[in-house]
Amino acid sequence: MAQTGTDQDATRSRLVEMAQGMIEERGAVGLSLSELAARAGISQGHLSRYFDSREELMEAIADHWFKPMADIMEDVLASDLPPRRKMYEFFARRFVVMRKKWEADPVKLQTYIEVGNENFEQVRSYIDLADHYLGEIIGEAMSDGHFTGLDVDETISLINQMCAPYCALNTMTMFMERLNEDKLARIIDAVFDGLSAQDRGARAVTGLRAA
Amino acid sequence: MAQTGTDQDATRSRLVEMAQGMIEERGAVGLSLSELAARAGISQGHLSRYFDSREELMEAIADHWFKPMADIMEDVLASDLPPRRKMYEFFARRFVVMRKKWEADPVKLQTYIEVGNENFEQVRSYIDLADHYLGEIIGEAMSDGHFTGLDVDETISLINQMCAPYCALNTMTMFMERLNEDKLARIIDAVFDGLSAQDRGARAVTGLRAA
Repeated sequence: MAQTGTDQDATRSRLVEMAQGMIEERGAVGLSLSELAARAGISQGHLSRYFDSREELMEAIADHWFKPMADIMEDVLASDLPPRRKMYEFFARRFVVMRKKWEADPVKLQTYIEVGNENFEQVRSYIDLADHYLGEIIGEAMSDGHFTGLDVDETISLINQMCAPYCALNTMTMFMERLNEDKLARIIDAVFDGLSAQDRGARAVTGLRAA
Repeated sequence: MAQTGTDQDATRSRLVEMAQGMIEERGAVGLSLSELAARAGISQGHLSRYFDSREELMEAIADHWFKPMADIMEDVLASDLPPRRKMYEFFARRFVVMRKKWEADPVKLQTYIEVGNENFEQVRSYIDLADHYLGEIIGEAMSDGHFTGLDVDETISLINQMCAPYCALNTMTMFMERLNEDKLARIIDAVFDGLSAQDRGARAVTGLRAA
């Protein structure tokens, strides 16, 4: 049975969605290629045309799950917003998508977070992509004179830490009820107006630290 | 057998430490009053002079675990440091204690964090205490003109979010390898120099937000 590329893509997408359904029912542990083949009513040989290994399937699920988030980041980066607005949108739009998932079904979201925690290689490439984009926004902000004395990687790390509840999913779900766009905007403003390499007194070089 | 108050306190402490040992061996699920009595070689009736219920025991364990953290907060609050230094020390000293626990035995620390997650009422009073102290430091900073337009509760929430990796234990252990005192100092400086109720452009009132 000859399939066109488009047919194959459609089948692959359908299989990924079916696998997501299985994960939502009983977690990632309950997901194997043989069970997916059974559920789809195809042979394991046929399934292997789409996924060579369980790992490849998990990767496809992660890609599918993160796709809307990657699209958001690309849209924001491609916009002609000033860096401060860009950075707010960069975090806010993805946060809003996650909050909607959480409001719709917090248990389902938690299942995906745990799938992610257990398959961290797949999540890693999404985090790397987010760091890459954040670095681009930071570069633009630096051209405008922000983050004096810091390098890009240091700034990425600091901003990820200051915005952890709005981007690290494990942290987000714990903090969710206290998170909102107004607070995020104040944090981003504080990042832009307060973050630099200049030591302004929080940490004393000498004094009580060792006490 | 008549015991002095001091004897009773010492026995109680010994029992709490014994219970902690049991938790470290096999998690909180494996901890019951009857097993603690057996381990201590005393009757359950005798044990009930110290702990009326498992809940009371868990509370005593949490108190014991959080005591050094509460002491740190009191010391910092009682110091005559300026508010910015106080806030840094408030987070940094507790972070350093946790990092030491993590370096010594990350699995043991994770066990206690899970005990805390499962017995959140006990943790709640520690968090409330920390928020109370943080509010005092914020009040001092406000007298110096910081956090213009924000109220104390709003500021507590914002700072807890911006410092989440340095105070929320679940988040801290995830971020641990990327956390250090230099970064915390930059974040506290950004809090003091960047955080206010003034809208400085991160969030546009109109524009691309709905896109």
